Amino acid sequence: MAPGDAQRNTYVALSPAPMTQASTAMSAIKDYILSQHLQPGDPLPTESKLCAGLGVSRSSVREAVRTLVALDIVEVRHGHGMFVGQVSMRPMVESLVFRGLLAPGDDYASLRDVVEVRTTLDIALADQVVKTWKDRPDPVLDGYIDDMEELAAEGKTFSEQDRAFHARLLEPLSNHLWSHLIDAFWAVHTLTVPLMDAPAAEDIIITAKAHREMLEAARKGDADAYRKATRRHYAPLASALSA
Amino acid sequence: MAPGDAQRNTYVALSPAPMTQASTAMSAIKDYILSQHLQPGDPLPTESKLCAGLGVSRSSVREAVRTLVALDIVEVRHGHGMFVGQVSMRPMVESLVFRGLLAPGDDYASLRDVVEVRTTLDIALADQVVKTWKDRPDPVLDGYIDDMEELAAEGKTFSEQDRAFHARLLEPLSNHLWSHLIDAFWAVHTLTVPLMDAPAAEDIIITAKAHREMLEAARKGDADAYRKATRRHYAPLASALSA
Repeated sequence: MAPGDAQRNTYVALSPAPMTQASTAMSAIKDYILSQHLQPGDPLPTESKLCAGLGVSRSSVREAVRTLVALDIVEVRHGHGMFVGQVSMRPMVESLVFRGLLAPGDDYASLRDVVEVRTTLDIALADQVVKTWKDRPDPVLDGYIDDMEELAAEGKTFSEQDRAFHARLLEPLSNHLWSHLIDAFWAVHTLTVPLMDAPAAEDIIITAKAHREMLEAARKGDADAYRKATRRHYAPLASALSA
Repeated sequence: MAPGDAQRNTYVALSPAPMTQASTAMSAIKDYILSQHLQPGDPLPTESKLCAGLGVSRSSVREAVRTLVALDIVEVRHGHGMFVGQVSMRPMVESLVFRGLLAPGDDYASLRDVVEVRTTLDIALADQVVKTWKDRPDPVLDGYIDDMEELAAEGKTFSEQDRAFHARLLEPLSNHLWSHLIDAFWAVHTLTVPLMDAPAAEDIIITAKAHREMLEAARKGDADAYRKATRRHYAPLASALSA
């Protein structure tokens, strides 16, 4: 994809510091976080201390911090200082949403791909979810479904409750990557879905009901019923996207 | 996770430009890419033109570009200019690797989670892969396996061929998110695996052979055999990680 000479423009290097200094600073900040066993939310040294400690220029530290902020590895709270970031999937969400917008073809194609990934992941986790939730009561989870059904009956959507439901369903799994991954695709979805028309009232009701069916199947220990309910959960969306 | 006063340090805001200007510049650059229907590798205007066009300061444009570079939405080639980036999963890989290193607990815990995600994704795609590759010859794919088996016989590992095999296996699927996602987890894996001891010679041979079994099962249209071969593919790694 290297551009030919014809595509060249008269750009002058943005960075006042050589790339290597900023890369060094970035690695050093990451190493510092690891060697000090810092966790998300823990404070980091001031910019001056970092410059002195690493023996690099202020501009290199700034460049490094900017990149680490974009990756959610460092968080800057203005007036308070720098902290270890949440190291969330936010950068992935941002990148995926932009990739979807960039993709040639119809607007729905990228959203269809995201919905397919969500469906497949939820179905792939059926055995684990069912094992975790068998005979396990949880008033919070039931509460989310009650709220969804109430909103659906009024023709309203319920994205807050929906996200909270899926997050809580996966939270007890021992591998936390799943909840991060599925939540990231949920976020990509939510950021892309405004492209679509509002869902029909009956589709909202079907989707709300499918959440209850998923949870009931899990509590009964029935992985097959869980997979079927998951498909019903995504069916109205899938058919709207292929229309 | 808000830090208490005791944790505060005497940090002075890093950014010379107010956050809002840089955010505006970032949105404007993204909008420009979308409205001009640019694709990865296409050139972007010079920094001066962006400043003039957006009516924001040079420092805001620099800050915005730094963030967009970190997200792989913009690429800076020194001496050549700015281009639309590959919008790859690289930011996610960087973030996941760091998250794994940051996680408390034993070093293998995060690698085990990554291997579980890889296994589950590969198994979840069995039906699609089998449908795509049934009765479909491909000398390139066969070549990767021949190379793997040759290297394995000499007790050597084959990560290049391994990655190329999985990428080519998923490439014909209509939803490209899968190959990006699986390749991203592959990369996380490769960056984390040096923590481990070198694999045993017989495990290398089993893994090479499992690739051939996966492909043969797919060509026979046997999804169940494909899933079993996928499990055999990951078995040596999974047992090394739980040792």
